[in-house]
Amino acid sequence: MKVAIIGCGVIGAGWAARFMLNGHDVSIFDPAPDAERCMREVLAHARSSLPALYDRPLPPVGRLDFARRITEAVTGADWVQESVPERLEVKRSTYAAIEPYLGNEAILASSTSAIRPSKLQELCSQPARLIVAHPFNPVYLLPLVEVVGSDLTPPALKARTAGILQGIGMYPLVLDREIDGFIGNRLQEAMWREALWMIKDGVATTAQIDEAILYGFGLRCAQMGQFETYRLSGGEAGMRHFFAQFGPSLAEPLSHLMDVPDLDTALIDRIADQSDAQSAGRSIREMERTRDASLVALIRALKPRRVGAGGTVRAHEAQLHLQQDGSLPVTARRVIPSSWTEANGHINETHYIEIASNAADALTESCGVTAEYIAAGRSHFTAETHVRYLVELHEGDEITVRTQVLYGTGKKTHLFHRFYGPDEKLAATVEMMILHVDLTTRAVREPLPHVAGALKSLEEAHAHLPRPEEAGTAIRDLRKAKAERARSSQG
Amino acid sequence: MKVAIIGCGVIGAGWAARFMLNGHDVSIFDPAPDAERCMREVLAHARSSLPALYDRPLPPVGRLDFARRITEAVTGADWVQESVPERLEVKRSTYAAIEPYLGNEAILASSTSAIRPSKLQELCSQPARLIVAHPFNPVYLLPLVEVVGSDLTPPALKARTAGILQGIGMYPLVLDREIDGFIGNRLQEAMWREALWMIKDGVATTAQIDEAILYGFGLRCAQMGQFETYRLSGGEAGMRHFFAQFGPSLAEPLSHLMDVPDLDTALIDRIADQSDAQSAGRSIREMERTRDASLVALIRALKPRRVGAGGTVRAHEAQLHLQQDGSLPVTARRVIPSSWTEANGHINETHYIEIASNAADALTESCGVTAEYIAAGRSHFTAETHVRYLVELHEGDEITVRTQVLYGTGKKTHLFHRFYGPDEKLAATVEMMILHVDLTTRAVREPLPHVAGALKSLEEAHAHLPRPEEAGTAIRDLRKAKAERARSSQG
Repeated sequence: MKVAIIGCGVIGAGWAARFMLNGHDVSIFDPAPDAERCMREVLAHARSSLPALYDRPLPPVGRLDFARRITEAVTGADWVQESVPERLEVKRSTYAAIEPYLGNEAILASSTSAIRPSKLQELCSQPARLIVAHPFNPVYLLPLVEVVGSDLTPPALKARTAGILQGIGMYPLVLDREIDGFIGNRLQEAMWREALWMIKDGVATTAQIDEAILYGFGLRCAQMGQFETYRLSGGEAGMRHFFAQFGPSLAEPLSHLMDVPDLDTALIDRIADQSDAQSAGRSIREMERTRDASLVALIRALKPRRVGAGGTVRAHEAQLHLQQDGSLPVTARRVIPSSWTEANGHINETHYIEIASNAADALTESCGVTAEYIAAGRSHFTAETHVRYLVELHEGDEITVRTQVLYGTGKKTHLFHRFYGPDEKLAATVEMMILHVDLTTRAVREPLPHVAGALKSLEEAHAHLPRPEEAGTAIRDLRKAKAERARSSQG
Repeated sequence: MKVAIIGCGVIGAGWAARFMLNGHDVSIFDPAPDAERCMREVLAHARSSLPALYDRPLPPVGRLDFARRITEAVTGADWVQESVPERLEVKRSTYAAIEPYLGNEAILASSTSAIRPSKLQELCSQPARLIVAHPFNPVYLLPLVEVVGSDLTPPALKARTAGILQGIGMYPLVLDREIDGFIGNRLQEAMWREALWMIKDGVATTAQIDEAILYGFGLRCAQMGQFETYRLSGGEAGMRHFFAQFGPSLAEPLSHLMDVPDLDTALIDRIADQSDAQSAGRSIREMERTRDASLVALIRALKPRRVGAGGTVRAHEAQLHLQQDGSLPVTARRVIPSSWTEANGHINETHYIEIASNAADALTESCGVTAEYIAAGRSHFTAETHVRYLVELHEGDEITVRTQVLYGTGKKTHLFHRFYGPDEKLAATVEMMILHVDLTTRAVREPLPHVAGALKSLEEAHAHLPRPEEAGTAIRDLRKAKAERARSSQG
């Protein structure tokens, strides 16, 4: 797919990075002098974080091109993402410049965070192809996109838009009808006005407000929305009981909600000063890196149970396939998240097993041990593992695992994983004995014939390769070696 | 410490569970017939989640006692946590019943989510000892407590309250002055009113609103507050630039903030129906278990970089110590989080190494390889690991690791960890060779003398114990074994 990015601030650049890292070619148009610098910075952040969400490799990165003219960017584009400033006259002139060069099937998506699509469509010669696709910063990590159309928008366009967005790992929230400000920003803005009032009244600082979010309900919001959270407060009696219990207090005038604070210089100065104190000299880039590392760790934490964004990544991951090369199967290829780094400066030993475990799963899955096979009551358990750590690995490194099947007959399968780091350097070996089991009895048992056959074929296909020297070795007994040395020097 | 819990709904029970799991004895008074059932359920949730946040064992669980009279519960209590309904007359009669039995040093803390402490103090005979400690549900997992006093509250009481709360792993946010609704609920309630309007206007469903939170800004809120998030939107130019760019749109009447929706039957019915559809038959208990598992996974994800709640757990963990027993050092004792469970129904192999890695750190730290020692440029790297998985382990199981030092001379240390699961059954062994390195050159190097001495002492102390049979073994070569069997049967 060719994607045109019109307007390359933080949002436009985030879109560009997400499309590129999902294998699409991107052409950018933004006349601002620092657009290219912004793009490079956002792309660097995205490259070191988005792939780290996945236990499978994303497709090869698409090409990036800066167009000198807007027509170059949009000609032949399948998707145009407009992220220009939120002023109707700027949108109008942008659309006027784009539309004559768009193909009939091209989608014109606006990143607007507040303008109704019907208002934007009034600016277009072919209004039916315009749709709002409103993302959240950082676009390359947060899955949410609000997809909003007007009465003029064909339902098929909404569906096609949602499909393309899912294809780049996003969660399209398709609104039933258009409203000002859509959903996410309405909620956030309500909170924000209240926060501004607290600063204005001098009852809390920016740091206190941020802490009230971060240590409390903010954590809840990462895994459950407000209605489900409040449903739990109502207990087994459900939402009606919640209102009976907590409804009346809503009427109390706790806050300034009926009003909007005047953003005068005094208030802006107060906020800016408190915010400077709060960020304590950390640069924006540094804060962004920390944020991205945390978001990757949070989304990864939600993957096992497929909660929220973790479910989005799992669904996307299921569509990703390992490209095979060479004589041994590639069972993993992935980028090291920065959250895997420990105080020593390299990745913690734990994650070698995490990778090896996924690699073994990929191999057995390719032999028929699928989610359905497991659900039907059979699987592999690991009995024994031997890791040799050879070269340090660091955040952002891409690791490729190639797996040799040393034995694959009947109940037992003996795997030898080689981890290759940057420059195809052998970084670790992980030897594993896995046993095929019956999940009901938890006892070791023969696999079903198609699985047994597939594993046996791999054993046979790999049998002509040299047996790895490290296979079957043990950790050395240094006390014994020392005692022997002592004896031989005496002798 | 003796803790009295007055009122044992979801909040009171959450407090009781957090205090108990941090080693304090708890006496509960609540005349409601289902208070005891609520307590048992919340305690079961808390037991299977709170300890799973930590890589160290929490202290032995405190005793739980249901008092038949309020006076029994509060007599001798160091801390009284009042969580009765939010009506002044209920609070008044509760305080009147409690105060005559309180010692001079006792703290009377109220869980009120909205009433100013000065109003509550008017109901007390000794107002100076009342303080607001407002937690967030689930109290046993979320670290935030808003600590609020009035002009009558001695600063020393605020500090003592904060200290006790930190001691049970919470994050006390001490407000400078009292305000209605404090900070967290003001922000949440602003969002909530906006959400109610969207339902009333029929522009979004409860599920859509929850998704807008969960997949978008909710994820951000778990790792960064709103001011810092918006600071990043302003870019390097900071908060002033953010207001120049985004300030004007605040004045636009995007929402109904100036008004409060009427909670009539029609609106409540609509919300309750949508909420029922959204939770699709999942019971409250089931949703709570999912929530808790996600919260544990999220908070654990924030631990490595000490972000938000992850930092709170790390700080608390640093105060926890491993109780020693028997002839080998206990290097880990911990509860298995449910997020470690995989489709097979047991914990994933990865986490055996996570535990072993922490156990090795605990052992070397006890020998002088402290955070300061590492910061000064020396540490241990793992060279080789051999795991044998013997018995399946499950969520909620407590694991104790005992570590034998097989060799501890100079640069090389050979460790043998035994994992004991429920009933002290040997569940796994992890053999490790670790190397002492210079972090600047990344080369293997002798430890400083105090570390070398401590490791050598352990080697000598453990030398008289039998060498584990499994040490020094390798994964068996089944092809060779098969070939030999074939040969011997021919021979």
